[in-house]
Amino acid sequence: MATTAQSVADLCLAARDAARELASTSSVTRERALEAIADALVARTDEILEANARDMEAGREAGLTGALLDRLLLTAERIAAIAAGARQVAVLPDPVGEIIGGGRLANGLELKKVRVPLGVVAIVYEARPNVTVDAAVLCLKSGNACVLRGSSSAAHSNAVLAGIAAQAAEGAGLPAGSVSLVAGGGREELAELATQEGVVDLIIPRGGEGLKAALKGVATVPVIYAASGNCHVYVDASADLDDAVAIAVNAKTHRPGVCNAAESLLVHSGVAAEFLPRVLEALRAESVELRVDARTRALAGAELGAALVDVTDEDFASEFLSLTIAVGVVDSLEEAIAHINRHGSGHSEAIVTADLDAALAFERGVDAACVYINASTRFTDGGEFGMGAEIGNSTQKLHARGPIGLRELCTIKYVVTGDGHVRT
Amino acid sequence: MATTAQSVADLCLAARDAARELASTSSVTRERALEAIADALVARTDEILEANARDMEAGREAGLTGALLDRLLLTAERIAAIAAGARQVAVLPDPVGEIIGGGRLANGLELKKVRVPLGVVAIVYEARPNVTVDAAVLCLKSGNACVLRGSSSAAHSNAVLAGIAAQAAEGAGLPAGSVSLVAGGGREELAELATQEGVVDLIIPRGGEGLKAALKGVATVPVIYAASGNCHVYVDASADLDDAVAIAVNAKTHRPGVCNAAESLLVHSGVAAEFLPRVLEALRAESVELRVDARTRALAGAELGAALVDVTDEDFASEFLSLTIAVGVVDSLEEAIAHINRHGSGHSEAIVTADLDAALAFERGVDAACVYINASTRFTDGGEFGMGAEIGNSTQKLHARGPIGLRELCTIKYVVTGDGHVRT
Repeated sequence: MATTAQSVADLCLAARDAARELASTSSVTRERALEAIADALVARTDEILEANARDMEAGREAGLTGALLDRLLLTAERIAAIAAGARQVAVLPDPVGEIIGGGRLANGLELKKVRVPLGVVAIVYEARPNVTVDAAVLCLKSGNACVLRGSSSAAHSNAVLAGIAAQAAEGAGLPAGSVSLVAGGGREELAELATQEGVVDLIIPRGGEGLKAALKGVATVPVIYAASGNCHVYVDASADLDDAVAIAVNAKTHRPGVCNAAESLLVHSGVAAEFLPRVLEALRAESVELRVDARTRALAGAELGAALVDVTDEDFASEFLSLTIAVGVVDSLEEAIAHINRHGSGHSEAIVTADLDAALAFERGVDAACVYINASTRFTDGGEFGMGAEIGNSTQKLHARGPIGLRELCTIKYVVTGDGHVRT
Repeated sequence: MATTAQSVADLCLAARDAARELASTSSVTRERALEAIADALVARTDEILEANARDMEAGREAGLTGALLDRLLLTAERIAAIAAGARQVAVLPDPVGEIIGGGRLANGLELKKVRVPLGVVAIVYEARPNVTVDAAVLCLKSGNACVLRGSSSAAHSNAVLAGIAAQAAEGAGLPAGSVSLVAGGGREELAELATQEGVVDLIIPRGGEGLKAALKGVATVPVIYAASGNCHVYVDASADLDDAVAIAVNAKTHRPGVCNAAESLLVHSGVAAEFLPRVLEALRAESVELRVDARTRALAGAELGAALVDVTDEDFASEFLSLTIAVGVVDSLEEAIAHINRHGSGHSEAIVTADLDAALAFERGVDAACVYINASTRFTDGGEFGMGAEIGNSTQKLHARGPIGLRELCTIKYVVTGDGHVRT
């Protein structure tokens, strides 16, 4: 691994040199490197735990909350799980070299459109030290060199983990510089990393809004911002109401703190009288706070009245990330689509319907990365989608939309072969 | 068409509304709209010529050069060619709705990865009024609304052309606001357009470095910058020298002012003595200025000596865009690849070789959008690549690399269909 005395710029240049070699490595070499990383993590568990204990102690002294300390904590079991994750990625299909188009042109030239690594991918992340390994493994599998920048609160853990990954990768035949860690978790290092234009090919931040805002101000390198998710479930007039209750409850309560959880429920007026009392009762039974419009309140039934809060426009625009839901009645599919396009963040949007026309209109009319028909928004995930793993989820439209997996960490190259062809 | 009294922000919002409708239009409707635009251009030729005459007069008064006036000039033949181009794009395969991946997941969910329009695409361009129609046509074909911003020198021509395109498109059933033109070609309008985050999905500049620099300073909307091309031809030790001469001459002289023309020639020392006198003579016969390193000069032959200029490092880094070439000798394929990765702009790079290992190493080792084996760099073009048309050429790695055709004007959407699926 690059030594901590290197400047960020030097470390990125070394990563670029490594990336140029990595682009020509075989699938087998990269697979073995990932297995070597997994082996080394397990073999050097004590060393990792020792470093982690120092971070935990500093965290306790600094007064970190219990939740943050838990995110920081490594145990032998957690290290084994990180190693198991690396082994799963190792055996995924290699995206590098995949031919995704081409053929013989009219003039006899052979054209191949080939998937190739991006080059140098920087991952910027917060407290969880497991990201150090998860990110390195996805980058190496896709033939990229990675530059990691974790938070200062996990500095000791990250240094050991990145060192182990770098050594194991090099030992397995990958070039030196394939994995490196920026020493120092400050804003200065972030700014330096984010301005290595022409050297760093992509930055992916994994963290909160503060991290994103810090990058947005300074980055000249391309950034794919992880998504916020203001997701909706729309229950159409023709919906199977049992399915609709199950989907609404699952989308809201299965894991309320993640980006693919639902934040709003829209109900067609044609089924509102029958459906709303049922779904509100079911949500309340899961301790969900109900923020409802006037029509919902009128239909909710008397015994629920005290549990209802009046919804505001701001609520409809909010990603609660908690057991809270905004509920409203709409008079048409078109009104639902317009509401979603106005308030949604383009992440995951669901319709429950038995009507094929409605399903098609929703699929085409909603502007989002993932559109669900009769299924919970909670499925938006690289693993669920069969991509094997993901490094985040994108709501932007360029390059990667939805889960960012191994293919999304690649670019393409056209390879054109002739026998002396000139253009006339 | 949006009236010129609208603010840039209002015009972009109208375009976004149009884009949401456009995403659901059928392929046939969009194809007919393009044919209607072609018909209207021919039918209203006099009106276009009249507006163009006013721009030409103003241009002459402002002292524009002959070259710029020629770029500004429209004739009946040029208008007919623009219309013919629109008809060619009309019948290209529709990228919208193409299913590019998916299947049945283990839990029974059906996953489709579908190509969908980006939404609102802004095209910013300089003197050529034909871009007004070319850009509108590519955007509409790919289901995008377009916002055009041309230069003030072509204001009258652009207003009439955009008006015709907008009217014809609306007449054929596309939503109002699908084509609009920003009134005013100043930096203020550019800055306002470039900051319509969340409304404009992509800006593509077509113009010189000044335009790109102006955008770079202000844009918060994603931009794909058209490429500069510092392209190389490398002649390997095993090259067929007849092919090598033909490819070097073609890549340099076929159209020296474009981005896929070669700017440098690298020759393996093993063939330099035999090859250099031949290729330099052939290039000189085409009036190419020869900037050569010391080894090339030593091998060039006495009668060429006076025609040779000493090459500088700056020459190797230059996109001449003229009949000038930098020539150097290298001792290995690896040295050639390193030189290209150091000086190239990642556009189009060619090797001439009979050696399969060398071809493979060059293909994988050179970091560029297009790599040529035994063919001229001049083929980098959406039309040549079978993409039907292009709106520019990208050397960036994210989203679009190489020719930007109809597919590159799209994003993707995941459509997931279940029968009440929830995540457990």
